[in-house]
Amino acid sequence: MAQVRPVPSTLPDSESIRADDLRAVWPILSAEDRAEGFLLLPRDDAEEFFLELDSHDHAALLMAVPPNARRLWLRYLAPDDAADAIQQLEPEERGELLCLLDDLARNEVSGLLAYADDAAGGLMSPRFARVRPDATVDEAIAYLRRQARNQQIETVYYAYVLDGMQRLLGVVSFRELFVASPEKHVSEVMKTEFISLPEDMDQEAVARIFAQRDLMALPVLDAEGRMKGIVTADDIVDVVEEEATEDIQKLGGMEALDMPYLRTPFGEMVRKRAGWLAALFLGEMLTATAMGHFEDEIAKAVVLALFVPLIISSGGNSGSQATTLVIRAMALGELRIRDWWRVIRRELASGLSLGVILASIGFARIVIWEHAFHSYGEHYLLVAGTVALSLIGVVTWGTLAGSMLPFLLKRIGFDPASASAPFVATLVDVSGLVIYFTVAQVILSGTML
Amino acid sequence: MAQVRPVPSTLPDSESIRADDLRAVWPILSAEDRAEGFLLLPRDDAEEFFLELDSHDHAALLMAVPPNARRLWLRYLAPDDAADAIQQLEPEERGELLCLLDDLARNEVSGLLAYADDAAGGLMSPRFARVRPDATVDEAIAYLRRQARNQQIETVYYAYVLDGMQRLLGVVSFRELFVASPEKHVSEVMKTEFISLPEDMDQEAVARIFAQRDLMALPVLDAEGRMKGIVTADDIVDVVEEEATEDIQKLGGMEALDMPYLRTPFGEMVRKRAGWLAALFLGEMLTATAMGHFEDEIAKAVVLALFVPLIISSGGNSGSQATTLVIRAMALGELRIRDWWRVIRRELASGLSLGVILASIGFARIVIWEHAFHSYGEHYLLVAGTVALSLIGVVTWGTLAGSMLPFLLKRIGFDPASASAPFVATLVDVSGLVIYFTVAQVILSGTML
Repeated sequence: MAQVRPVPSTLPDSESIRADDLRAVWPILSAEDRAEGFLLLPRDDAEEFFLELDSHDHAALLMAVPPNARRLWLRYLAPDDAADAIQQLEPEERGELLCLLDDLARNEVSGLLAYADDAAGGLMSPRFARVRPDATVDEAIAYLRRQARNQQIETVYYAYVLDGMQRLLGVVSFRELFVASPEKHVSEVMKTEFISLPEDMDQEAVARIFAQRDLMALPVLDAEGRMKGIVTADDIVDVVEEEATEDIQKLGGMEALDMPYLRTPFGEMVRKRAGWLAALFLGEMLTATAMGHFEDEIAKAVVLALFVPLIISSGGNSGSQATTLVIRAMALGELRIRDWWRVIRRELASGLSLGVILASIGFARIVIWEHAFHSYGEHYLLVAGTVALSLIGVVTWGTLAGSMLPFLLKRIGFDPASASAPFVATLVDVSGLVIYFTVAQVILSGTML
Repeated sequence: MAQVRPVPSTLPDSESIRADDLRAVWPILSAEDRAEGFLLLPRDDAEEFFLELDSHDHAALLMAVPPNARRLWLRYLAPDDAADAIQQLEPEERGELLCLLDDLARNEVSGLLAYADDAAGGLMSPRFARVRPDATVDEAIAYLRRQARNQQIETVYYAYVLDGMQRLLGVVSFRELFVASPEKHVSEVMKTEFISLPEDMDQEAVARIFAQRDLMALPVLDAEGRMKGIVTADDIVDVVEEEATEDIQKLGGMEALDMPYLRTPFGEMVRKRAGWLAALFLGEMLTATAMGHFEDEIAKAVVLALFVPLIISSGGNSGSQATTLVIRAMALGELRIRDWWRVIRRELASGLSLGVILASIGFARIVIWEHAFHSYGEHYLLVAGTVALSLIGVVTWGTLAGSMLPFLLKRIGFDPASASAPFVATLVDVSGLVIYFTVAQVILSGTML
């Protein structure tokens, strides 16, 4: 756990509680109880506690406290956080909160509300440090100091050099300003080669750039090259977690939840799970149809039915590995559509190797069981051969299908993460049955069939 | 894509290439070709390109370039990045690179190499801004300016107030220093309540704190409260991605790869996948044993075998949803072990609801098919009842097992993410068969069995 050093303080009176107490019970409190507990916090604790909340909690808390506290705490938020909180509310409630802001902040927040909340513009803060190119280093430092004092900048890390049209000419870090000779001009020390983000760039793409380049902040520009705000690395940490959660839930075979597990209403959760589960069930019904085609074979050689779960699950498991690997590599930008040919060769080789490994285990299992328990009758070697050959076919096919499905989905414009493990398993189950019984017909024809 | 504004430059001569060209072909080049291409870059491009590489590439490139370039580029790295790169090498190669550093940097890097690379100490940079508590604000700013000029600090964002024993007394942001009256003492403007990280804290826990608190940098302290370095948000972006990748790959039913998909050697990838796949296969063999017990029932009523894949896959899919939800919620800190009882009640209700939905679809399917194709004989209603009841049982059980397994694994000290979707599916397959054939014996006894 993180160590929080307590500030020496007077003893709490009986009415007051500490932030840690409130944190512990927060998830199980109603909106009203939360507001009540929050208003009992000492001011220092309340400030820290409030800034930690996510935008969903900010919105709910602001609507639950009395009007004077609502005004106070809304104004306490930075404009990008205020915009995120207001975005959580119903459209008719938004105006009420906007009116509580002062004119400058209301303009900033209204501007931010115009962006989709998963675009670069929706992540950015409009309060960045700006300097003119013809200022001296000393003038720039003094000017930044004034901006900081007036709360006009959220982070002091880079200063952005703008022309009269608000177009971004260059970037200079505070460290570089500190180091430069005081009488030089900003235009002489700024970097003119810099990375910037278009305001409508998807947050996943923004996160990729931060991850690859290890940067603390990036400027956001509109189509005319005018600077609109900055996105900082601390906001990207949340984006990366959010995107990974979405992908993981899709991989698990369901629609992504929009909220933490315990906070998602029961009905909504069942709906998000039932949709995919029913779709998979309908697909899986084809297995009953496929099995129906081989009913005569099963009746003649019941022993074939015994290995059905083993064979189809091996295809599903190998497909699930392949699809997971490819989907994650795509999300991290390691694989693009044009790489499909390299992946197919690699996965064909993997699938065959894995298939041979499982086939050997399966063959040995049947031979050993036959000698130990006489389970499989006189043709046990033929049965073992059928199972082993089918395993090679099913595992290779499962691996190929699992690795190619994300490419296919991406190619036709869907999210590759929808090629979830259960989806691939269902696909492979049906085709796995056909492979198994076809192999059986060839090998066992004339003896058991 | 990010817009990179070209710096006006002289025309490239025929021998030189640009960073973008090298980036495009980088993944398919050998180590030697990479080194050759890198040395052809103009100096500015090379600096930017080099800083973007990950530690694995840093290490490989440093070992592939000639000694004079090796010395130059190693010294170009910040100490934490140099330590990460050196950590990638074989122990016998590490000394060679360490000797190329100057004395100060060698001491810093050696200190960092002592930390596990997934602990707070392994993430931190030792170059932070430090000030004395009795300095005035103006003195502190001047002193920080000197530190920045001498390259002693990596980021200028917070200054850390240390006593004579290097113990951390307080933190002050640059913005606060800028805003404060110049003649005040640092001790009057610093915050004494701050979050700090123990040096051996796991990087996953470090990432959780950054995500919850939206911070740009945190100090790392040793057991005596002495400040050792800072961790910054840009490094945490990488950690969050890395941890999500690890969890996703485990959820897909394999050991996590340590490297990008295309860069993982083929043999290592097959080994990491074959281990789990073989383990799951051995578990899945129990299905053949379970089916063997019901061989007589299958021989009497072959129609029962037709629904085996449908029923066990429904259990597997619902279990996969539940385990994915719980594992991700645990990784995000939303669920702790003590929450198991709340989860079990919620998942019992979910499992029953989902089971009833699938049972209704399954029942309807059999009745409709019977009327359309006469597939299932005179007792089709009993068969439909057996399938429907089994589905309720299997889906409820799959959901419960999938949600509780991560708690169980965490309780006995394993990584909950090992409760992968395929692992849960295998577990549920075997028990699902027992549920199905038991229900069949009860319902069909006296008619079909």
